[in-house]
Amino acid sequence: MTYEGVVSSHVQSAGDRIAFIVLDGLGGLPDKPGGRTELESAVKPNLDRLAKGGQTGLIDPVAPGITPGSGPGHLGLFGYDPLTHIVGRGVLSALGVGFPLETIDLAARINFATLDAEGRIVDRRAGRIPTEECEGLVALLDGMEIPGVRVFVRAEKEHRAVVVFRGEGLEDALSDSDPQATGVPPEIVRAERPEAARAAEIANRFIDETRKRLAAETRANGVLLRGFARYRPLPTFRERYGLRAVALALYPMYRGLARLVGMEVLDVKGGASSLFEALVAHYNEYDFFFLHIKDPDKAGEDGNFAEKKKAIEAVDRLLPRLDDLPDKLVIVTGDHSTPAIMKSHSFHPVPFLMNGRLVRPDGTREFGESSSAAGSLGRFPAREILPLALAHAGRLKKFGA
Amino acid sequence: MTYEGVVSSHVQSAGDRIAFIVLDGLGGLPDKPGGRTELESAVKPNLDRLAKGGQTGLIDPVAPGITPGSGPGHLGLFGYDPLTHIVGRGVLSALGVGFPLETIDLAARINFATLDAEGRIVDRRAGRIPTEECEGLVALLDGMEIPGVRVFVRAEKEHRAVVVFRGEGLEDALSDSDPQATGVPPEIVRAERPEAARAAEIANRFIDETRKRLAAETRANGVLLRGFARYRPLPTFRERYGLRAVALALYPMYRGLARLVGMEVLDVKGGASSLFEALVAHYNEYDFFFLHIKDPDKAGEDGNFAEKKKAIEAVDRLLPRLDDLPDKLVIVTGDHSTPAIMKSHSFHPVPFLMNGRLVRPDGTREFGESSSAAGSLGRFPAREILPLALAHAGRLKKFGA
Repeated sequence: MTYEGVVSSHVQSAGDRIAFIVLDGLGGLPDKPGGRTELESAVKPNLDRLAKGGQTGLIDPVAPGITPGSGPGHLGLFGYDPLTHIVGRGVLSALGVGFPLETIDLAARINFATLDAEGRIVDRRAGRIPTEECEGLVALLDGMEIPGVRVFVRAEKEHRAVVVFRGEGLEDALSDSDPQATGVPPEIVRAERPEAARAAEIANRFIDETRKRLAAETRANGVLLRGFARYRPLPTFRERYGLRAVALALYPMYRGLARLVGMEVLDVKGGASSLFEALVAHYNEYDFFFLHIKDPDKAGEDGNFAEKKKAIEAVDRLLPRLDDLPDKLVIVTGDHSTPAIMKSHSFHPVPFLMNGRLVRPDGTREFGESSSAAGSLGRFPAREILPLALAHAGRLKKFGA
Repeated sequence: MTYEGVVSSHVQSAGDRIAFIVLDGLGGLPDKPGGRTELESAVKPNLDRLAKGGQTGLIDPVAPGITPGSGPGHLGLFGYDPLTHIVGRGVLSALGVGFPLETIDLAARINFATLDAEGRIVDRRAGRIPTEECEGLVALLDGMEIPGVRVFVRAEKEHRAVVVFRGEGLEDALSDSDPQATGVPPEIVRAERPEAARAAEIANRFIDETRKRLAAETRANGVLLRGFARYRPLPTFRERYGLRAVALALYPMYRGLARLVGMEVLDVKGGASSLFEALVAHYNEYDFFFLHIKDPDKAGEDGNFAEKKKAIEAVDRLLPRLDDLPDKLVIVTGDHSTPAIMKSHSFHPVPFLMNGRLVRPDGTREFGESSSAAGSLGRFPAREILPLALAHAGRLKKFGA
């Protein structure tokens, strides 16, 4: 029997509710030698209070040393091994723009590119055209008619877009058309298994047609496709953990990742406070609340130490909204670190705190990277979070007699 | 996808250089109840400084409770699971005497032994003859002529030697001739698979011929062979980690282990200081420097607590040689513990420190067993060292979007 198997087969439906609060990019680094991190230097009385009354540790969302993208980072938090559950680039792009994928959909990431008169790639990013220009180009391609297939094209940012082919039997064993090089023409999409022959034909037909529709463009007169991927939803939170789970997230990517594991997604508008309000308003309807806050990651990616600190402080001020909710387990962590001094996601393990009536307090005195390193949960893989959450919510039965 | 697979496929060639300093047998035990270990009682301002500005933990080179030999210990440090990558005794012996193995070589460990008139084993170690006597016996056997095969025999220490058969198609599925008992004759070497039939024939022919050549000896008049093993180099550091790796080691065993994983080996003469000098002199030529210092292990094996402490202090005094090298990650650890009070390798996890610009300092105040146990890396398997090293050297790309 596997660990996952024991957890799934020992779930019981009654128990405390779980508020799973993800501060995107939470972990950080000091901005000067001997200094404190973004989290450690933030004024955060409520996080500190939760840590003091609870238990802390450091998580590796994927594995030690691995820098998680948003997809693998969240799958890790949700307890789906990111090394075995690979979400293809095309599907992640479609999730990222909030496209409502269906199980027959085949998605691919698009780069708008500049081709010369002979069809060779001059610029793989078409001079990084502005997003508005990308949206205009997408309108030229969306809804293209290919027999037996519906074609959806959506803009991401700048030169980036996504195409979704909806039709029966479109397999994703396809090579990229993007050669990841300039001075050569885009490649023909090839089926890497016989079953994908029709999908390859459709992808190539789409690419040919884009050349005609983009012929008048000077910069973005071609497309490069990569990361063909079928949409394959994962076993749901209900199936694996017996949880009625809901996502409270403002950004499409995270709403999409939540949908991938079968969470309901509430349509919340507004800032972070509206997420907390929605949690309170719907507290009796669900068992598990995935609340996602993007701001710390954004500030970290911008290299703005002070802004990241403020983003954490803003969440801290919202936490008391949960104080009066009965029978709850509160978890606060992140999907990866985004140290402002690195301006990027990083591999550093992420602070984790858990507070609830069955949590054994470990004497942590504040919530931070160093204090969490000394927390009683130690350094642990993210795949243990959900089992720990279920257990501390009183939702796992005894194993064996 | 496996952890190792993600690491290999996300390596990038640029990044900080990695100085990987292995103090053989570093971990220890207090020499009296309530006392400090060899490392903890050493005066080691530079190790303490690196620990203070960095991160510490405790590694299990093989697995908890397992006492590593030099081979498994180093394979663990290098990120090759010692439980799946078994280096046969014969190959380890050949590496240990610095014999330049080739991929067609079949090696076996020899014991010189005393046989009685009926050919029964009287002493499996021939009275532990001195090494000089062993060298004389080896000269009688080396270069023995067997058609289609070259035979090399080299002395180790006392009654120990190694034989290498060089020829095409010599498989190593062979039983030992050493019955590990006295009062019985040596066994015939048997092929455990049909492909090894020729190798068995050659091994038995070698054994027969040694009886003739050693007939005049009183003590060492026979040989016992065990641990037949073909030389199989492992995937290289370049292949697995994208690293140009070099070994700076004075002892043949460690030079051989480094060669096994594709490291270049510099021909360094002198003491430990010459290793550090070589690192500085060749700093621009490689990405990864495996610097091996044997002295702490030797003192530990001798049961000399004070001498082991001094050996650590001697390395500490050399560390400032690295101070002016730019863009580096420094790692200091050991391949196993060798507590002086045990006079042997032990299973105790080994202190580990890492210091570099992307390392999140964890408040460690000195380098020692107890302080490392409280370090933010926690207790972790050695196979995570290289992924962590690559990550902290900025040499691993993001996994997933």
